[in-house]
Amino acid sequence: MTEQQTPRRGRGRRPADEVRGEVLAAAGDLLLAEGMAGFTFERVSAISGASRTTLHKWWPSRGALAAEAYFRTVESTLAFPDTGDIAADLTEQLLAFVRLMTRTAAGRVIAELIGSAQTDPELAAAYREHYSAPRRALAVTAVEAARDRGQVRDDVDAEAVVDQLWGACYHRLLIPDQPLTEAFARTLVDQLVRGLRPA
Amino acid sequence: MTEQQTPRRGRGRRPADEVRGEVLAAAGDLLLAEGMAGFTFERVSAISGASRTTLHKWWPSRGALAAEAYFRTVESTLAFPDTGDIAADLTEQLLAFVRLMTRTAAGRVIAELIGSAQTDPELAAAYREHYSAPRRALAVTAVEAARDRGQVRDDVDAEAVVDQLWGACYHRLLIPDQPLTEAFARTLVDQLVRGLRPA
Repeated sequence: MTEQQTPRRGRGRRPADEVRGEVLAAAGDLLLAEGMAGFTFERVSAISGASRTTLHKWWPSRGALAAEAYFRTVESTLAFPDTGDIAADLTEQLLAFVRLMTRTAAGRVIAELIGSAQTDPELAAAYREHYSAPRRALAVTAVEAARDRGQVRDDVDAEAVVDQLWGACYHRLLIPDQPLTEAFARTLVDQLVRGLRPA
Repeated sequence: MTEQQTPRRGRGRRPADEVRGEVLAAAGDLLLAEGMAGFTFERVSAISGASRTTLHKWWPSRGALAAEAYFRTVESTLAFPDTGDIAADLTEQLLAFVRLMTRTAAGRVIAELIGSAQTDPELAAAYREHYSAPRRALAVTAVEAARDRGQVRDDVDAEAVVDQLWGACYHRLLIPDQPLTEAFARTLVDQLVRGLRPA
């Protein structure tokens, strides 16, 4: 039997966007609770009520579904502040990111997503489309606005700033030779803004 | 039959260090040629001549063997220069690292090693012990020496410098929203040394 022949609980009549949003919310909860190990189409189908046929139609792999669900779940936590003071805004956003990584299961999940992405092209594409590329763009926009206000050098490379702040945090998340802490996040911004040269 | 009963080609009489070095060299060649997908104890045993019993005795998992073999293979390429000019030394070492990542199979291999390490504790431990921790220590020593010469601020956080230079490169290697290039490596050093503030 296909879904079209047997719409369950009237879902067949509901807008696809609504069903999709519910699936992503349920998938995000599962992901944060159990990590990638327990994350399967079967489990997401069971807790969201959407059929596996529907899930496979919308997402090419469990990795692609996981990446989009992760992004939807953490999106609001990671809004970019705009107070007009770039050092304060970068610090605030980086602190929110570090807290999410270290105080919730999101850190383990994102490490597993990035890990799996190294050998799963569909997950890698979904991760970049739904998560890393849009978040990078937000930070770049903020740095470029600060440049236009004269708060940072005219020749700032905003893309490289992203790597020197968030990338530095991902480095400690993925290769934990040193701890990822709020003090570290503050140091990253301070050291990059002031530079290494003696005052 | 165990290895003890039938020493092949007289290997039983050779110093363990010598056999170990040969195994790591053969394993490193295999790793750079085929990546993690083709990297098994069986293949390493076949090309090195060491028995699988020996390999299992020395390395708890194929990941642990891969991490140590990778380190031995790239070690000489990544020596840390000391010209007395910290910006030049950091740039030179970072350029050597970027070339290794982008012009040889090492980039794909290290991405796979870090990826697998997220769900393989033995690989993660071997990676940190044999590769990331010692390399981090070399860079920290260089930055601290520059601080003692007065070339960088007294309050420099040398550990964070590692994350803001090499970590930034790993970020682009693992999440390639932007390309890992030699120009990027030069920008990282320049931007960190000068700082973001307007001159």
